[in-house]
Amino acid sequence: MSASALALFTFDSAGSATGYRLVDPAQPALTVTELAATRGDGVFETVGLHEGHPIKAARHFERFAQSVRMLDLPAQDWTIWDAALHEVAAALDLDPSSEGWVKMVLSRGIEGGTTPTGWAYATASASTASVRADGLRVVLLDRGYRHDIAQTAPWLLQGAKTISYAVNRSAYREAARRDADDVVFVSSDGYLLEGPTSTLVLRTGMTLRTTRTDAGILAGTTQAELFEWAAGNGYETTYELLTPADLAAADAAWLVSSVRLAAPIRAVDGTPKPVDAALTASFTAHLHSLAG
Amino acid sequence: MSASALALFTFDSAGSATGYRLVDPAQPALTVTELAATRGDGVFETVGLHEGHPIKAARHFERFAQSVRMLDLPAQDWTIWDAALHEVAAALDLDPSSEGWVKMVLSRGIEGGTTPTGWAYATASASTASVRADGLRVVLLDRGYRHDIAQTAPWLLQGAKTISYAVNRSAYREAARRDADDVVFVSSDGYLLEGPTSTLVLRTGMTLRTTRTDAGILAGTTQAELFEWAAGNGYETTYELLTPADLAAADAAWLVSSVRLAAPIRAVDGTPKPVDAALTASFTAHLHSLAG
Repeated sequence: MSASALALFTFDSAGSATGYRLVDPAQPALTVTELAATRGDGVFETVGLHEGHPIKAARHFERFAQSVRMLDLPAQDWTIWDAALHEVAAALDLDPSSEGWVKMVLSRGIEGGTTPTGWAYATASASTASVRADGLRVVLLDRGYRHDIAQTAPWLLQGAKTISYAVNRSAYREAARRDADDVVFVSSDGYLLEGPTSTLVLRTGMTLRTTRTDAGILAGTTQAELFEWAAGNGYETTYELLTPADLAAADAAWLVSSVRLAAPIRAVDGTPKPVDAALTASFTAHLHSLAG
Repeated sequence: MSASALALFTFDSAGSATGYRLVDPAQPALTVTELAATRGDGVFETVGLHEGHPIKAARHFERFAQSVRMLDLPAQDWTIWDAALHEVAAALDLDPSSEGWVKMVLSRGIEGGTTPTGWAYATASASTASVRADGLRVVLLDRGYRHDIAQTAPWLLQGAKTISYAVNRSAYREAARRDADDVVFVSSDGYLLEGPTSTLVLRTGMTLRTTRTDAGILAGTTQAELFEWAAGNGYETTYELLTPADLAAADAAWLVSSVRLAAPIRAVDGTPKPVDAALTASFTAHLHSLAG
C-alpha cells in the first residue's frame, strides 16, 4: 500500500494529453513559472475512491470538459485521463476499508509556453464516516454575486471548477471563526447557492431540492447522481431558487461532494437542524455502489 | 546576463522566512500537493526593475504584509525577503537598457503541512515602452460585486493580492474577444474599480483621480507613488467613487502598474480617448528614478 501516487501527462502541440508517466509524488514536479502556481489558471476534478475504485468517473470527466471549455483550455482526450485516474488509484493498493481520492488538474502550463500542464494525484485519506454520522454546523455567507451572474458576466467563471480557490479557503476560515464547520454561500440577491466545495441538497417530505444549476454554481456530480437514484426510489427532485427560509423549513439538508459524500447539516447559523441518518446511509450506500 | 533567477525561502516553525537559497529556476521546485498550485492559496507581489534595480520595494512589502494578514498567513521578516529580492534582481545582471521584474510569492505550503512556501523569481522581460507610447484599448466589464463588498464580506478577499487570478486572466481573454487590450472592472452598482492587474488613474485638468481604496480594489503601489509625486508637482489628487461618465469626461486616463508603469488608455469600449504623452513620460521618469 502506497500513501500516494502521481501521473504527469504529456501533451501534443494542440495541448491534448497524449499519455502519462508515473513519478514520485514527493519530488517537485512544477516550476515556479507554472501558471497553476502563480495565477490559479487551471481547472480540476477530485474523484472519490471506494475500496480503491473511482466513484462516478464519467460524471467528473463531463464536468472537467465543461470547465476546460469555460477557461478556453485545450480540449482533451478523456480516455487518457481516465486511464491515468484508474492507474494512480490502483497504485495506492488501498485496503478495502481505507478511503482515498484522486485530484486531476489541467493548467495553462508554464508562463510563455505553449502546452498545458496536467497531473492526476492519488492519495489515501482519513475516514469521512464521522462527518456523515455527526453532521455539519454551517454558516450562511454572502458570495457577493447576484444569482444570475453566470449569464450576465461569464468572464467571472462561475460554474467552472477552477483552481483559484483562495476565496473558498477564506470562507472556511470565516466559518471556523464562527465556530462552524462549513459554509453555504448566498447570492447578493438572497438565494442559497452552494458550499465552497459542495452542493446543497434539501429534503422536504418526499422531495429532494437543490439550487438551479444556472444560478452561478458548479453543477454537482454527487448531487446529480443522488437525484437520479432518488427519482428511481420514490422521490420527486427539483432544481429551484432556494432561500434561507427554505433551508430553515426543510426536513433535512446535506452538503454533498465527491469525497465526503452526503454530509448532513445539523445546524445553520447556530440553529439546530434535524439529521436524516437513514437517508444519509442510503446515499452513502448508493455512491459506494458506483465505484469501478 | 542570466534570463532568470530564483530564490527559495526557508521558514521557521512559526512560518516566518529565515533565509533563502538560489536555485535553478528551470528545475521543478514545487510538488503537486503545493496549495499555490491546487488552491491558488497564497499572495504575491511583482516588483518592476529599472536598470536591474527594484522600483519602490518598500511599498510592495507594505502591501505584501497586508495581503498576508488578510489571508491569515504567517507574518514575515521582510528584511529577508528584501535581501532575496535584491539578490535575484542582481543575479539577472541586466544590461541598463533591459527590463525585468521579480515576482515574490508566499503560499500556505504543502497540503497537510505546517509551513508556507515562498519564492522570489526574477526574469528579464520584453520592453514595455511601446504600450506606454501606443496606449491601451480598454473595455468595461462587470466584476459582479458591489463597491462596498470589502466591508460587508471580507472573506471574499477583495483588496488582497492573491494568486487566485483565474478571473483576471479570463477578463483579459474577454477583452481580446472584444478587440481590446485591457479591462476596467465596474462594480455591480456602477462604479469604476481597477484593471485586472492595474490601478485606474484619471486626469481632469490639474487633478489626478483614482478609485477609493475601500471600494474592493487593491491599493496600487504605482498609483500611490505617482500621487505623491503629483502632489509635489502642482496637481490635486483625489480618491473617489468614479463612474464610467467620469472616465468619458476625463482629459486623460491610465492603467498604472509595477511593470508596465503608467499605460495611457486610448480607447474605452471602442470610443477614442486622448493620450497625455507628456505626463506619461513624466510618470515614467519619476518611477524609473526610484529604482534602487
